[in-house]
Amino acid sequence: MSILVVGSVAFDTVETPVGRAEKVLGGSASFFSLAASFFESVNLVGVVGRDFGEEQLACFAGRDIDLEGLERVEGETFHWGGRYADDLNSRETLFTHLNVFESFKPKIPERYRTSPNVFLGNIDPVLQLEVLDQVQEPRLVACDTMNFWIDGRLEALHELLNRVDVLLINDSEARQLSGESNLVKAARAIRALGPRTLVIKKGEHGAVTFSDEGCFIAAAFPVEDVVDPTGAGDTFAGGFVGYLAAAGTIDDATLRRAVIMGSTLASFSVEAFSVERLLSLTRDEIHARFRVFKHLIDFDPL
Amino acid sequence: MSILVVGSVAFDTVETPVGRAEKVLGGSASFFSLAASFFESVNLVGVVGRDFGEEQLACFAGRDIDLEGLERVEGETFHWGGRYADDLNSRETLFTHLNVFESFKPKIPERYRTSPNVFLGNIDPVLQLEVLDQVQEPRLVACDTMNFWIDGRLEALHELLNRVDVLLINDSEARQLSGESNLVKAARAIRALGPRTLVIKKGEHGAVTFSDEGCFIAAAFPVEDVVDPTGAGDTFAGGFVGYLAAAGTIDDATLRRAVIMGSTLASFSVEAFSVERLLSLTRDEIHARFRVFKHLIDFDPL
Repeated sequence: MSILVVGSVAFDTVETPVGRAEKVLGGSASFFSLAASFFESVNLVGVVGRDFGEEQLACFAGRDIDLEGLERVEGETFHWGGRYADDLNSRETLFTHLNVFESFKPKIPERYRTSPNVFLGNIDPVLQLEVLDQVQEPRLVACDTMNFWIDGRLEALHELLNRVDVLLINDSEARQLSGESNLVKAARAIRALGPRTLVIKKGEHGAVTFSDEGCFIAAAFPVEDVVDPTGAGDTFAGGFVGYLAAAGTIDDATLRRAVIMGSTLASFSVEAFSVERLLSLTRDEIHARFRVFKHLIDFDPL
Repeated sequence: MSILVVGSVAFDTVETPVGRAEKVLGGSASFFSLAASFFESVNLVGVVGRDFGEEQLACFAGRDIDLEGLERVEGETFHWGGRYADDLNSRETLFTHLNVFESFKPKIPERYRTSPNVFLGNIDPVLQLEVLDQVQEPRLVACDTMNFWIDGRLEALHELLNRVDVLLINDSEARQLSGESNLVKAARAIRALGPRTLVIKKGEHGAVTFSDEGCFIAAAFPVEDVVDPTGAGDTFAGGFVGYLAAAGTIDDATLRRAVIMGSTLASFSVEAFSVERLLSLTRDEIHARFRVFKHLIDFDPL
């Protein structure tokens, strides 16, 4: 069951303790699509400029990713630059050139409008709502957001949250959105705003999921050689939504495996710059690491 | 198989967002002993002053905790004061009155010297070594340390680590001791110093254990109403060592359950000030939460 994703397709210039990557493929929709396409067909909606060329498009080729919704307009592609600290846990933004993304108005191609699964990447909640207005009752709507929109677009964000099934955000955003420092309390407050399922991502500390079935705690896979954390959250979302989209029914067991799948995909993504590792990744590697994951957290009852 | 513990027995004055507790029972050996005594008999070595009275001693009464090794000398008991930030994840020390603890020289009573299990709480590594010199080849030696000793007593600490089986430290200490920011690399470097098993505690993010059998990742139990985190790490150590001491053999499966047991005990400890919650705790509650823990992290294979 196909997935519609709306988000950024961008260039990233990234410095990490390991090295530097100049103007490489980035953006939430890019990482999401590449991860999700291991499980289901993806319909991508985004915008790029004239400087987005064959080299970047080739990253999506040969995969089940439809690019009809990737607009190409006059101007330059969204370009983000950032530098990670030595421990790779914090980063500073060096520049944000929104370029063509500044006036992005998602236009959903006719044949995308019946996609049963929708992922709304981290863009203005006003635009996320406009996307929902253009699609026909999806079975699953998941979305991401960030501190910038919690600060500046809270009303639209509340309206949006009332219409989504799954919200994926990081722990500091969950605290900000709820005004609660305790994550259990934060989750209760946020779920009361609409999303039945809340996935709180904690980076190297894993993810905690709250649903009607209770709480599920997932570790992050311990990666020894982290090269570039950029896109890990979007890759997580891609693995998570991709797995749910491919699953027949969404129950507690499916949800738990989907979270681990998201974490598995993210653990690969950080092993190289940009989308490099996702491009070389195989289904066998994914399944093998999922199995290792199980062993890493398993313990016997008393 | 009994456990010898050497560490601080103290008064704590603690302020948290929930309230304030004045001159209540604290200290690493106190939390450790109360937690471990759910599983095995404990022989406690420490020192207190004349101000340490019946009220405090009553906390240990009726439990399998031997206090022959708890010296009572002229002067006042070690008294620590601290204040926690609103998110309970960071704290500032308001005062540290070492008092009688400043000249603490652990004297191990004769009948303690054959304790098969030893836990060296966070004291000067020089003293931790002196304790090891007084005991007869224990089957299990576990220890804790902190940034202060890594900075100031590195040589003695290295000598000590060469003689312990299990080191329990927090993530920032692991990074400091190894000089590695990545925990997988830090663990490899620290295990090369001696301890076959390394438990890295990450507070609300759980614990990661490295041993000859590989890596085990344990979540922290999500506590909604944290009242006072003081002593959580020592309570973790008490549950962990206590479970191992009571176990026949120490294999990978036992080690994993011991970590979860440590985490279970710690999750109770933070629910009240001082050792209050450990005093009201029952074995049934421990077993019930251990079972919930299993459900919280469990997922099916693909």
